Amino acid sequence: MTSAPGPSTLPYTYLGPEGTFTESALLQVPGAAAAPRIPSTNTAAALAKVRAGEALAAMLPIENSIEGGVPATLDAISGGDELRILAEAVVPVSFVLVARPGVSLADVTHVGTHPHAWAQTRDWFQANLPDAVHVPSNSTAAAAYGLLEDRPAYQAAVCASLVAERTGLAVLASGIEDNIGAVTRFVLVGRPGLLPAPTGADKTTLSIPLPEDRPGALMEILEQFASRGVNLSRIESRPTGQFLGHYSFSVDVDGHIGDARVADALRGLHRVSPGLSFLGSYPRADQQPPVVHPYNADQAFAEADAWVKALLGR
Amino acid sequence: MTSAPGPSTLPYTYLGPEGTFTESALLQVPGAAAAPRIPSTNTAAALAKVRAGEALAAMLPIENSIEGGVPATLDAISGGDELRILAEAVVPVSFVLVARPGVSLADVTHVGTHPHAWAQTRDWFQANLPDAVHVPSNSTAAAAYGLLEDRPAYQAAVCASLVAERTGLAVLASGIEDNIGAVTRFVLVGRPGLLPAPTGADKTTLSIPLPEDRPGALMEILEQFASRGVNLSRIESRPTGQFLGHYSFSVDVDGHIGDARVADALRGLHRVSPGLSFLGSYPRADQQPPVVHPYNADQAFAEADAWVKALLGR
Amino acid sequence: MTSAPGPSTLPYTYLGPEGTFTESALLQVPGAAAAPRIPSTNTAAALAKVRAGEALAAMLPIENSIEGGVPATLDAISGGDELRILAEAVVPVSFVLVARPGVSLADVTHVGTHPHAWAQTRDWFQANLPDAVHVPSNSTAAAAYGLLEDRPAYQAAVCASLVAERTGLAVLASGIEDNIGAVTRFVLVGRPGLLPAPTGADKTTLSIPLPEDRPGALMEILEQFASRGVNLSRIESRPTGQFLGHYSFSVDVDGHIGDARVADALRGLHRVSPGLSFLGSYPRADQQPPVVHPYNADQAFAEADAWVKALLGR
Amino acid sequence: MTSAPGPSTLPYTYLGPEGTFTESALLQVPGAAAAPRIPSTNTAAALAKVRAGEALAAMLPIENSIEGGVPATLDAISGGDELRILAEAVVPVSFVLVARPGVSLADVTHVGTHPHAWAQTRDWFQANLPDAVHVPSNSTAAAAYGLLEDRPAYQAAVCASLVAERTGLAVLASGIEDNIGAVTRFVLVGRPGLLPAPTGADKTTLSIPLPEDRPGALMEILEQFASRGVNLSRIESRPTGQFLGHYSFSVDVDGHIGDARVADALRGLHRVSPGLSFLGSYPRADQQPPVVHPYNADQAFAEADAWVKALLGR
Repeated sequence: MTSAPGPSTLPYTYLGPEGTFTESALLQVPGAAAAPRIPSTNTAAALAKVRAGEALAAMLPIENSIEGGVPATLDAISGGDELRILAEAVVPVSFVLVARPGVSLADVTHVGTHPHAWAQTRDWFQANLPDAVHVPSNSTAAAAYGLLEDRPAYQAAVCASLVAERTGLAVLASGIEDNIGAVTRFVLVGRPGLLPAPTGADKTTLSIPLPEDRPGALMEILEQFASRGVNLSRIESRPTGQFLGHYSFSVDVDGHIGDARVADALRGLHRVSPGLSFLGSYPRADQQPPVVHPYNADQAFAEADAWVKALLGR
Repeated sequence: MTSAPGPSTLPYTYLGPEGTFTESALLQVPGAAAAPRIPSTNTAAALAKVRAGEALAAMLPIENSIEGGVPATLDAISGGDELRILAEAVVPVSFVLVARPGVSLADVTHVGTHPHAWAQTRDWFQANLPDAVHVPSNSTAAAAYGLLEDRPAYQAAVCASLVAERTGLAVLASGIEDNIGAVTRFVLVGRPGLLPAPTGADKTTLSIPLPEDRPGALMEILEQFASRGVNLSRIESRPTGQFLGHYSFSVDVDGHIGDARVADALRGLHRVSPGLSFLGSYPRADQQPPVVHPYNADQAFAEADAWVKALLGR
Repeated sequence: MTSAPGPSTLPYTYLGPEGTFTESALLQVPGAAAAPRIPSTNTAAALAKVRAGEALAAMLPIENSIEGGVPATLDAISGGDELRILAEAVVPVSFVLVARPGVSLADVTHVGTHPHAWAQTRDWFQANLPDAVHVPSNSTAAAAYGLLEDRPAYQAAVCASLVAERTGLAVLASGIEDNIGAVTRFVLVGRPGLLPAPTGADKTTLSIPLPEDRPGALMEILEQFASRGVNLSRIESRPTGQFLGHYSFSVDVDGHIGDARVADALRGLHRVSPGLSFLGSYPRADQQPPVVHPYNADQAFAEADAWVKALLGR
Repeated sequence: MTSAPGPSTLPYTYLGPEGTFTESALLQVPGAAAAPRIPSTNTAAALAKVRAGEALAAMLPIENSIEGGVPATLDAISGGDELRILAEAVVPVSFVLVARPGVSLADVTHVGTHPHAWAQTRDWFQANLPDAVHVPSNSTAAAAYGLLEDRPAYQAAVCASLVAERTGLAVLASGIEDNIGAVTRFVLVGRPGLLPAPTGADKTTLSIPLPEDRPGALMEILEQFASRGVNLSRIESRPTGQFLGHYSFSVDVDGHIGDARVADALRGLHRVSPGLSFLGSYPRADQQPPVVHPYNADQAFAEADAWVKALLGR
C-alpha cells in the first residue's frame, strides 16, 4: 500500500470466519456492507485490531451465542485501553443444513458443525436423520467451508444462511433450530471519541466495581440509578481477579449519557465507585423508548440546577 | 426622620418584652448589643417587621421554650415572602427570683410569672416557699416589670437574669429551675440576599412538602440526603393546610448549601418535591463539624462532574 | 378502704381544671361521661395517677394545644413504667366569651384567659372590643371559674364552651377563635394489658431510639416500615438526654400491631433498635382505613410464612 | 432387574463423557467415588434422569466452563419439577497433553480437543508446538478417548488429568492452561426432601421473577436482603420467555434457609414476588462463614419475635 489510508478506508472486523452470525450482525450497520470487513479468530484479536487502529470497529457477540465464548466479551472491552460500544445488533439464531449441489438428504451419514449448533438442532435430526454422526468443527462457518475442500469427512454442514449464500452450497433444509425465535445480541465496539447521538431510545453499558463486599453495597450502587429513575435492563455480577468476594457489576441501563438523569446517576456512581468504566451510550436495537417520569426528565434537572444556582447567587 | 437611614441603622427585633431569653439570644449576635433592638409582641409581628424592611432581622425561639408558642415558628418563616435563617443561638434556661430592694424571701406570699416558668420551678418553691401563690403573667419579663408598678399583686417574680439586670430588682435566689442544663434554641431571621459564609460547621434548614401520601414517599426524600451522606439533625412532620394526610417535613441537616453534597441533595429534592423551601444555611451554635466520608466531600463531587463532562466531550 | 374496688369504679383523669378541652376529649370516650373523672394539674401528675393504679386512664393533649405543654407528653408516656395509648380524640378548638349573667359586651373592659387563648382571639377582640385589657390566667377554665369568685379583676373570660355549661355563665359570643377549623388531638393513656381490638382503621405509636448517629440510620428505620407498606402519619425527632446528637424518633403509623405488616415491621425494628417502645395500637379518631397493597395484606404474610415453613419441613 | 433397588443403589449422573472436569467435581462428593456413576450427554438429559428417579443426583457446571453450555443450567433446574441444589464443588481448570505411550512431543503435528480447551492453551502451544493443527472434538474427554481408537486423526489430546488416569495415556505435559488458577464451579442437583443441614458456611440459590419492569423494582427485591443483612455473592438478570423487558434474577446469597435472617428475607421476597423458586441451601465449597452483625443473628430474630408475641398477648 503506497498511500496512507484515510479513516474511512479502515476495515470493520468481526468474529469469523466469513458467514458467521456475527458477520450478519455487522451487515446491519449502515455502510458496513459496502465497507471492507476482515474476520478475526477470537474476541481478543478483534479488539486488538481496534485498539491498534487497524480496524474501525469490531462486531462481537455479547450474549450467549452459537459461536460461544461470550460472557467475557464485556470484560475484554473494559479491560485494556478504553473502548466504546457504538451500536447493538440483534440477529435471529436460525440454522440451515447445507451440502454440495447434487447431494440429497438420503446421502447424509455425517454432519459437520460446531458442538453448540449440533446441540441446538437435536430435535430436527432426531426426526429427520436419526442416524447422522456429528463431526465437530471450530465454527459453523468452518464446517460449511470444509465441504468445499477435498474429500470432506461429512456430507452436510449446519450453519447460518449467510454462509450458504457465500459458498453457493445447496440448502437441504432451513429453520432446523429447536428453539424457534431465539436471538443473539451483538455489539459494535470502537475507540472513544465517537459518542453516538441520543435517539430517545438508547442504552448505556457500565462496568462498576463493588466498593466493598458488605451487605448493602450493591444497593448503594442501585440507589444511584433508582433515585434518578434510571431503569436497569441487565445486571450481572462478575468476579474480579483472583480474590474471592471481589466483584464487579456489568449493567445496561435505559438511556443515554446525554440524558440528564443518566449523567447524574453516573456522577453519583463515580463518587461511590470511582473505578467504574463507561462502555458506551448507543441506540437500542429494539428502538423502544423508556418511560420517564416528568421529575426525572431533562427539564426537571435543569430547573433543580437553576434553583440551587440562584440560592447560591451564582 | 429627615435623612435616609443606612441598613446599619435598621434595628433588630425579638420576641419581647425586654429582658426575655430571646433578647439574651439576640445579644449573642456579634454587633447586636450595640445595635438598636425593638421587642415584638409575637412571632408574626416580628416577621412582619423584617418583611416590611423595618427590622434588619428577628430573633425567635425555634424549640419549645419558656416563652411558648414555638413549633409554628418555622411555619411562619416559610409561609410568606421568602426569609432566611442567618444564625442560631442557644441560651440556657435558668431562672432567678427577683423582688424590690428590701423585700426578703420571708415577705413573699405571691409570685408573678408566666405559667410555663411556674411549672418549671415547682421543686424549688415546694422546698423553699411551699405556700407561695402563683399570679399568672403573659411573660416572665412582664411579671418582673410589674413589680416596678404601683401596688403589684405579688411581692416577687420568676424571670431571666437579664431582666433583673435591666430593672435593678434584687435577686432573692438564682438557678431555681428544676431541670438543670436545659437550653432553648433560637434563630435569627432576615431577608434573602445575606447567605452566611460556610464555616465548616453549618446547618441548613428546609421545609419539604411530601410529594404524595404513600408508603415510601418520605423515604424517597430521605434517600436524597442519604445518597450524598448528608446527616439529618432534626425532622418533624407538619400537617399542611386543612386536608388530612397532607404533610410537610421540617428538617435541619448538617452542612451548608455551599458544600457540594448539600447542594446536590437540594437538586435531588427539587426534582421530587419542587415546592420545597430553603430556609437558610448558617453556622451551628455548637460549632461541631460533621464527619464527611471522602466520597461525599467537595473533591469527590468535582471529580465526578469532571469525569462526566469529559465523557460528554464538554 | 375496706372493700376492694372493681376496675369500673376507678376514675378517669385529665388535664384540668374542669371544663378544659381535655375534659371535652375525655367525654368522647364511651362510658366516660357516666364515670368518675378527676382533674390533674399537669401531665406528670395525671400519668402518676395511672401508674399508681389510682386512675383507670388519663386523657392528655398530644398536639400543640391551647392548654400548652404538649410536645413532651409522649416523652412522659414512654419514660417510666410502661403505659399504653388506648384511644385518640380530636376536639375542635373553639372559644366562647363568657360573663356573669346580666353583664353585656359594653361592660367588658378586662378579659381573663390563658395567654395562648388570648393570642388566638386577637382578630375578634380587635374588631369587637379593641380596648379590652388582658388579665392572664393559668388556664381558660381557671379564668372562667375566676368570674364566680368575689370581685374578679375582669368582667369576661375566654374559655371552652364546656366550662360555660358547667358554670352557668352567660355566653356573650361564641366561635371567636381566629383560626376557624383548628383541632387539637388528645390521647387516652392506660396501663398495659388492655390492647384495643383492631378496627381496620387504627394507628400505632412508637418511640424509637436512633441506633447510631450516622447518615442513613434514620433510613434504616424507615425501611422497616416501607418494606412492609406501613405508612407513617407523623414523625418527630426528639433529643434524648443530655448528649448532643442522640435522638429518638416519635412516630405514628397507620395500622394495628394485630395487622401482620405492622407486627412484622415491629420485629424488624426490634432488631435494629432493641430499645424501642410500643406506646399502643388504637382506633384512629378519623376512622379512615389505610390503603394496603395485596402483597402487604395479612394473607400475603400468611402465605409467605407457610411457604418458608414448608421448605424447612416444619 | 428383578428386585426393587434401594435409594442407595441409585447412580449419580454427570455431564460426560467419563473423565471430564464434571466427573472430577462429582468425585469430591463424599461417597460418590464408591457409588455408581453414569455420564449424561447434556444438562437436560442429566436433570431428566434425576426427575425420573433414575439418578440420585446430577453434577453440573454452573459457571462458564471448558465444557461449555453453562449459563442456562440454573434455568433448566428451576424450569420443571422442583429440584434442589445439594452441594457445590469447585474444580481447578488445568489441562494435560496426552498421547499414546511411546509418542513424544516431537511427533505431534495434530492435536484433538474441544474448541474452548484449544482457546485456553494458546500460549503453551505457541511456545512449544507453534505448528500444531487443531482437530475439534465435542469434549476434551472425547478427544482423549479418540486416541485409543484405530488410526486417530491426531497424535495428542488436551484434556483433564482424570481422563489420563482412566485411559492410561501418557502425559506429555501438564499445567498447560494459559490462565493459571482458574476454577469452575459445579452443583450437585437432586430432588426436594433432602435439605442439607446448615454448616455455618452455606449458600442459598434463588430464582426471582421481577414483579414489574419499573425503576426500583430490583431495589425492592434487594432491600429484602439488605434489611436482614443477607449478602449477595452472585446476581444475574435472565430474560424470561419471549417478552422483551421481562426478567428473572438468579442470585446466590450467603447463608442457609435455616438461618433466621435468610428465612425472613425469603418471607419478604415471597410477598413481593410470589413466583420465586428456592433452588437450595447447601454448604459453600470454600467453607468461608459470613460476617453477621449481632442484630441479624438468630438470637436477635428470636428476641424480636418474642417481644412482638408478648405485646400481642400470645
